Amino acid sequence: MVKRTSQPQYALGVDYGTNSVRALIVDTADGSPVASAVYNYPSGEQGILLDPRDPHVARQNPADYVEGFYAAVGQAVQEAEAQPGFRPARVVGIGVDTTGSTPIPVDASGTPLAWDRRFQNQLAAQAWLWKDHTAVAEAAEITEQARRTQDAYLAKCGGVYSSEWYWAKILHCKRTAPEVFQAAHAWVELTDFVPAFLTGNTNPDTLPRGICAAGHKAMFHQEWGGLPRESLLRRLEPDLLRVARHYAPTALTSDQQAGKLQAEIAERVGLPAGIPVAVGALDAHMGAVGAGVKPGTLVKILGTSACDITVWPLEKPLPDIPGLCGIVPGSVLPGMYGLEAGQSAVGDIFHWFVQNLVPAQLSQQGDPHRVLSEQARQFPAGASGLLALDWNNGNRTVLVDPLLSGLLIGQTLHTTAAEIYRALIEATAFGALTILNRFAQYGVQIRDVVHCGGIAEKNPLVMQIYADVCNRPMKVIRAAQTCALGSAIYGAVVGGAFRTVPAAQRKMCPPTRDVFKPQRAAAKTYAQLYWLYQQLHDAFGTPAETGNLFPVMKELIAIRNQVRQQAV
Amino acid sequence: MVKRTSQPQYALGVDYGTNSVRALIVDTADGSPVASAVYNYPSGEQGILLDPRDPHVARQNPADYVEGFYAAVGQAVQEAEAQPGFRPARVVGIGVDTTGSTPIPVDASGTPLAWDRRFQNQLAAQAWLWKDHTAVAEAAEITEQARRTQDAYLAKCGGVYSSEWYWAKILHCKRTAPEVFQAAHAWVELTDFVPAFLTGNTNPDTLPRGICAAGHKAMFHQEWGGLPRESLLRRLEPDLLRVARHYAPTALTSDQQAGKLQAEIAERVGLPAGIPVAVGALDAHMGAVGAGVKPGTLVKILGTSACDITVWPLEKPLPDIPGLCGIVPGSVLPGMYGLEAGQSAVGDIFHWFVQNLVPAQLSQQGDPHRVLSEQARQFPAGASGLLALDWNNGNRTVLVDPLLSGLLIGQTLHTTAAEIYRALIEATAFGALTILNRFAQYGVQIRDVVHCGGIAEKNPLVMQIYADVCNRPMKVIRAAQTCALGSAIYGAVVGGAFRTVPAAQRKMCPPTRDVFKPQRAAAKTYAQLYWLYQQLHDAFGTPAETGNLFPVMKELIAIRNQVRQQAV
Repeated sequence: MVKRTSQPQYALGVDYGTNSVRALIVDTADGSPVASAVYNYPSGEQGILLDPRDPHVARQNPADYVEGFYAAVGQAVQEAEAQPGFRPARVVGIGVDTTGSTPIPVDASGTPLAWDRRFQNQLAAQAWLWKDHTAVAEAAEITEQARRTQDAYLAKCGGVYSSEWYWAKILHCKRTAPEVFQAAHAWVELTDFVPAFLTGNTNPDTLPRGICAAGHKAMFHQEWGGLPRESLLRRLEPDLLRVARHYAPTALTSDQQAGKLQAEIAERVGLPAGIPVAVGALDAHMGAVGAGVKPGTLVKILGTSACDITVWPLEKPLPDIPGLCGIVPGSVLPGMYGLEAGQSAVGDIFHWFVQNLVPAQLSQQGDPHRVLSEQARQFPAGASGLLALDWNNGNRTVLVDPLLSGLLIGQTLHTTAAEIYRALIEATAFGALTILNRFAQYGVQIRDVVHCGGIAEKNPLVMQIYADVCNRPMKVIRAAQTCALGSAIYGAVVGGAFRTVPAAQRKMCPPTRDVFKPQRAAAKTYAQLYWLYQQLHDAFGTPAETGNLFPVMKELIAIRNQVRQQAV
Repeated sequence: MVKRTSQPQYALGVDYGTNSVRALIVDTADGSPVASAVYNYPSGEQGILLDPRDPHVARQNPADYVEGFYAAVGQAVQEAEAQPGFRPARVVGIGVDTTGSTPIPVDASGTPLAWDRRFQNQLAAQAWLWKDHTAVAEAAEITEQARRTQDAYLAKCGGVYSSEWYWAKILHCKRTAPEVFQAAHAWVELTDFVPAFLTGNTNPDTLPRGICAAGHKAMFHQEWGGLPRESLLRRLEPDLLRVARHYAPTALTSDQQAGKLQAEIAERVGLPAGIPVAVGALDAHMGAVGAGVKPGTLVKILGTSACDITVWPLEKPLPDIPGLCGIVPGSVLPGMYGLEAGQSAVGDIFHWFVQNLVPAQLSQQGDPHRVLSEQARQFPAGASGLLALDWNNGNRTVLVDPLLSGLLIGQTLHTTAAEIYRALIEATAFGALTILNRFAQYGVQIRDVVHCGGIAEKNPLVMQIYADVCNRPMKVIRAAQTCALGSAIYGAVVGGAFRTVPAAQRKMCPPTRDVFKPQRAAAKTYAQLYWLYQQLHDAFGTPAETGNLFPVMKELIAIRNQVRQQAV
């Protein structure tokens, strides 16, 4: 317990995830949770609006975000009031993080077009969720056009502009739903939309835009004066100039205030009006802050996808790193480059497998993830003879290619669901190693790998396999809600409880819960398997000439036989 | 109805499959079934003795074969006696077919070593079931040694000796279970073992050996005077000479008698003693006879695996065809080359998938094969974006490589079990097309493709996909028990009801039940997919340099998008 010398203070973090929004109230003295509540988005399938004709579509109803704030924050405040010491008036600040790039088309008042009767049933008028992959062609076009310029647009985002990002989605809307594009006065990232709504500062032309989403998703960089130059936008589509015009000329770090909580919203959730609201940031970046990111520490948020975040002092030289999703000054911590890498699907792959391919006899034994992990733990690395690629949702880092897909090799007539489940875990671990190797290759030394997120906390088999595959210790921190905690840390900073974010982190970040150490035999086998993974990775993921894949199946069988014999 | 001018005559066919034995009594006038009975082997897992440490082991208890004859034939005779006109005395002959190569180690009296207390628990002393793949190294060694000789050993069996075959299995036994090898006086194919047991002619040195198993599995050919020359066997392992010495010097076609049914066996099944028993043959070859094989007709027996059989007149020139499992004079029809190709797993792949990877919600709707086929029928060719290789049990034709394994590519987070099930069906269809192309390439014109076997009869989706993939009509014949019928045809011939096998076929073979015609749109899409299948086939299945597989995933997505748009 921290000895109190004064009145306790609290901060509120609000974390908008893919399927739900979470509100977390913490004590600023030690970051300990006082109350939290979750609201599941009611629209679509688990909050996502799908199109059965196109698996790349993923949209959300913006009304879910507003309702989610009232429900989750209202409930959290109510719960907190049962705790001794808590008073709504002692909440010093609010931080917000969201998924992204999740741009929302809005009218001149900042109201989502989705709330206009004319557009309410149109998927293009909804929020374009981060994992929407419809804009593949437009992303390729932007990459192509950006490559032709003198500016380092692509160097800041890994060499390839992604179909998940702001301009690609907006351009796709213009091409496929021109009436929505025409009606949209501006496009606002969810991460800016929420603070705007909370503070009443919803005018799209002036509402604060966070550097995190701007820099990582909208090619915003001081080097070329903010958003991409008119010449580039005009070549892509002259109408994009209108979108750029209704966008604030500067982008802010999250230690700055977006405004104060509006009275009418405050009243509905039981808080006093006027609480400072921090500029919003992307969930993974806030998660990294909550997990204690600093130079030399890579934070991996393992959930439906994986976000890998580290920071690097602005004053130290840093080369452009091909394949990284983004290198943005101030996007994670003020005064540092925020470096972001990631895997387009991790938990989503396991979830897909369990939903679609796990036999009745297994699911009858309880939570299929638990049952499969228990079975998969029973046999050693390499014993299944299977190898998979982790590309069911494309590859973000290092290939930056959403049009890649899954691959499983080595099936026999005896292959079991647990063996495939383990191969899928291993595939995501090989993907994680590929990212670590890329950092190392460009001089970004990673001393500590710290994990948080649902998968890291719930599945020790995953963490052990990551340690064995990467052949280094893997830490898991004690925090169920790292993203919301990161937001709360920024809330505490804008609320004046701390002068800097690192000072807040030192008090509020949680300790390490577990360290998974690599096992020698497994690490040795995984080194062999990773070599084969690289063969498949390069053959299917790069246009370079590959030799021949004939040895891959044979090697898998040789490794399998060797491992099984040792296990006897 | 056939007008009877004389007393009716009957023939008995006994078909030893992978999991059970079937007895079929037919009227020789038109081949119509009078009675049939099945006996499931009680030992091991569905009749197969497995080794959990080695998925390549597949053995059988020889006692199951004997018990199976008594049970299945006894029951069939009893049932037939309820039919008007039937009398046991009117059964003119018995034909036998079995799986193979399924060699059994026996003592000097022809008794299986498995029945000796010393060996009863030893897997090496049991029957080595056709799909046992433990002898991979020995098969490679035999191929290597045979290649160095002047004789055309390999040209008659596709260029590669298989781990499924006689000498590889025996050599593997010598290497891994020398005490069993030492105790074995001789090795008898199941296909010869059953007629020997029925006729009492069990002396391994003299019992009739069928040309079908001898020629296709034991490298028996007139060209080099029967079994492989001593020089080859000695180089492999001098002790193999002993095995060759206890093997009849000639091998017989199945229109010849192995002997007469022994009195004590006859009595136990309710038949008169002395009925002629035909020389045994392999099940697929008898199945081809039962399905009406003749020059220009390819019979495909689609069950757990696929056996493709056609014949070619001995007097017409025929090149050696690389990758074919066998080209043996007289093995199917007297006076013709028997040509055999095949796929190591077809139904086994579907069965594996259904057993291991079909979710509860599907299996609750009834037979998963039916439910999945029903769902898979709903979307067009190419719509899943998936592509698979059909190699879960290795590849028999044209690669002759048991160490290949399965591959599935194109998975997204939306891929369903039904989509994968369809991709697996398509993979086996692409494998079937590869075989048809190989025949055509070497001048063996196939005018008709006739299907029989469980999969062909039960699953119209499979047959339609085969027609679409191969872009030619696919026939299915009206017969549930083609192998047993082929045996019965040979029974009728040795019993004197017909003078030649073709004469018997003309009367006794069943008519075509269905013709599946190719659909134009699907055939077009499958042509695109087959091109991609060939890329994967060559990359993983041959040591030749391949270019790059980068376009494969992209093409699958392009095809998928195109097909889905057309379907809207």
